[in-house]
Amino acid sequence: MDNIKYFFNPQTVAVVGASSKPGKIGHECFKSMVRGNFRGNVYPINPSVQEVLGKKAYPSIEDVPEDIDLVIYALPAKDSIEIFNQFKKKSVKAVIIISGGFREFSENGVLLEEEILRIAKRDGFRIIGPNCVGVFDPYSGVDSLFQPYERLPRPKKGNIAVISQSGTFAVTFMDWASEENVGVSKVISIGNRSDVDEAELIHFLDNDPNTKVISLYVESFTNGRRLAESIRECGKPVIVFLASRTSYGARVAKSHTGRMASNYLIAKDVIENCGAFIAEDLQQFYDVSKSVSLLKNFVGKNVMMITNGAGPCVVAADLISEYGLKMVEPSEKLVSLLRQVLPPYAIISNPIDLTGSATSKDFINAVRVCADSQEVDIIVLSIVFQDVPLEDDFVKQLSLIDFKKPIFVFAAGGQYTRERFILLHESNIPAFQNIKNLVSSINAVIAFSRKGKI
Amino acid sequence: MDNIKYFFNPQTVAVVGASSKPGKIGHECFKSMVRGNFRGNVYPINPSVQEVLGKKAYPSIEDVPEDIDLVIYALPAKDSIEIFNQFKKKSVKAVIIISGGFREFSENGVLLEEEILRIAKRDGFRIIGPNCVGVFDPYSGVDSLFQPYERLPRPKKGNIAVISQSGTFAVTFMDWASEENVGVSKVISIGNRSDVDEAELIHFLDNDPNTKVISLYVESFTNGRRLAESIRECGKPVIVFLASRTSYGARVAKSHTGRMASNYLIAKDVIENCGAFIAEDLQQFYDVSKSVSLLKNFVGKNVMMITNGAGPCVVAADLISEYGLKMVEPSEKLVSLLRQVLPPYAIISNPIDLTGSATSKDFINAVRVCADSQEVDIIVLSIVFQDVPLEDDFVKQLSLIDFKKPIFVFAAGGQYTRERFILLHESNIPAFQNIKNLVSSINAVIAFSRKGKI
Repeated sequence: MDNIKYFFNPQTVAVVGASSKPGKIGHECFKSMVRGNFRGNVYPINPSVQEVLGKKAYPSIEDVPEDIDLVIYALPAKDSIEIFNQFKKKSVKAVIIISGGFREFSENGVLLEEEILRIAKRDGFRIIGPNCVGVFDPYSGVDSLFQPYERLPRPKKGNIAVISQSGTFAVTFMDWASEENVGVSKVISIGNRSDVDEAELIHFLDNDPNTKVISLYVESFTNGRRLAESIRECGKPVIVFLASRTSYGARVAKSHTGRMASNYLIAKDVIENCGAFIAEDLQQFYDVSKSVSLLKNFVGKNVMMITNGAGPCVVAADLISEYGLKMVEPSEKLVSLLRQVLPPYAIISNPIDLTGSATSKDFINAVRVCADSQEVDIIVLSIVFQDVPLEDDFVKQLSLIDFKKPIFVFAAGGQYTRERFILLHESNIPAFQNIKNLVSSINAVIAFSRKGKI
Repeated sequence: MDNIKYFFNPQTVAVVGASSKPGKIGHECFKSMVRGNFRGNVYPINPSVQEVLGKKAYPSIEDVPEDIDLVIYALPAKDSIEIFNQFKKKSVKAVIIISGGFREFSENGVLLEEEILRIAKRDGFRIIGPNCVGVFDPYSGVDSLFQPYERLPRPKKGNIAVISQSGTFAVTFMDWASEENVGVSKVISIGNRSDVDEAELIHFLDNDPNTKVISLYVESFTNGRRLAESIRECGKPVIVFLASRTSYGARVAKSHTGRMASNYLIAKDVIENCGAFIAEDLQQFYDVSKSVSLLKNFVGKNVMMITNGAGPCVVAADLISEYGLKMVEPSEKLVSLLRQVLPPYAIISNPIDLTGSATSKDFINAVRVCADSQEVDIIVLSIVFQDVPLEDDFVKQLSLIDFKKPIFVFAAGGQYTRERFILLHESNIPAFQNIKNLVSSINAVIAFSRKGKI
């Protein structure tokens, strides 16, 4: 267990298979390590070249002049046993195996995977992978991903820890988070999960001061009971996206990471009973994680909507009632307070419809009155950013005020709208292009608040 | 009915309330008309200024030196009756009322709306609105929207006609379509729907040579039977997103556009029985519309997936089986043909997992073999564009080939990934960030193909 920390906080890293050819996976992993803000030494290991990206290359890790905490392995599976046998001499504590060709690929791959696991146990190092993209930690600068920055911008420091059996989902989560200015504490792609598994990572992250919420994508189980226990014991919110609902999904999961899936409904039930939130799809998994990351605890269920284009509020009202939340029926007093600050054409009900003529001032006045009212627990803004006369700096104005009530924003559109999410998230206001995810995020935050996990 | 065409193909347009102040709704509507490629004359009507955007302003439409086909009305509701009484003298055929303050606002607004309707019937012109963003037609250049181009880029010419009771949803649809390079034939926001309604528009669009698919957002009904009949009689695919599932949604719908909602389940059932596809949310509404727009008819249900990051294929496999489609079990012959063209590390099953090492050539070889196989009807590519060594120009290479089988792409990520959708859509390959929408789009195209509507 102790060695787990070396995946995220090593002093020295070696990239075995660091190629000098751009586009090669070993090259890109090394480049990611170099481009991050990692403070320790990073050594390229490659017997065929003198240097990689200006750094002196070593023929093997035995040639490196100091001990190595973390090895990133990006050579073919067949070479692994010989190379892994060298790790003990360098006191290697942790190994990320990017390469595939193990359990998921062939009978021989299964044998290889078992053998390297035996070596790891014997020599006291831990393994993440094989068949994964590995680890991203914006705090320490560890970045084993072979996706170049130009295609996959990295998210900032934050408090979401992502554990994913699929490297693709880990990458997508990072891509969305980066674009929307949502931070992560760690992203961990575990691939075939031959050694370090979700349960162990959840225990570790429960004690990680940078992590507030744990987001887990899982498509198969090796030890479901252990995983369930780890979620139950975890003091932090855990959000789970489970795949392999059908036998078809299960079969694909098997060829994907060499692991058999379990019965979906049983797994879902067990994990939900352990206190996790189960997301229905990847976007909801991301959106709920983001919300729990940004918000403080609250338990009240009275929702007031404020809008400059009420169409989405019709859909939201359906979902709010279906999810067991309450639409505020504004009292005469609240209506009168709103009347005093809003233009005559505003329709004061729920939603408060400021109409397409709404200005930033109208929105802010309405939010202020609602935030000060005992009748309202949660404010949902459904904003058409594309409308004039809403000013370009509306979000900036909004972000300068601490309303002391949870605020959620729905806004759907392209680049102009999406850019507005950046400052909203900076101000701890989660923003959504999907209304259902907004409403289920409210529910998730309430549920975790009630459990005292947030 | 005949006058409907003047909303989309007028010779002359007057914008009543065209202000010279940027940010005013009347200014922005006029600017949109000027910025489009509309070939006829557009007159700003405003008694207080000499010109708007360099065009001579007229105090009233009676002062305009020629007849007016289409009026865009952007003044307060209270001024409407006096102004509408002038329309007959200029042989006005069609009026778009952007302004709110009618049925949705007050008792007096109801009376105003009834009165202008009476005038319209008497004087022989038609009304879209009030309380809407009106019409966008990229073929004629009619563009009454007050959302400026900087916030809402306009989609290109295409074949989707959008009819929306919510201006916000119309705007969102346009924003997404523009960003993803999906074209529209018309976007029609009908707001309070005091005169021209969905049923009449569906009949009109059924005969519109630019329209292939009709996408309808509706949150309430005035004459549900008439709407259902129009969908049943329509020879083109109709995709419907219905809101107001609950009494809360219905109440919001009432204050939104002054119309009572009907029972959701009955409405859904009736409309589905008339042959429409019912979308579950706005994103699915958009994604299915896009797919039907881009694709030719097909009915086979055998799906083969090809990927360089199989995680999403686990989720896709679940959905494919749940939606009644079939996962191809590749025959020995197909496996052997694939082996000949793919690298040794590819896992040949369904999905064909080319792994993170996949190149464009690997993908194209796999697609070619599957497209030539009788075993495969539909090809789903789950692509991690962020991965190297996949080349930057992969989509360009893919788009140069006509594989003669329907291809769907799943790819999730940020800007780099989204940019790749542009060329995919240019090549009639629909691309999705949501797997469920991909699978339901396959089903929708099959269903419309079976009905001979596509």
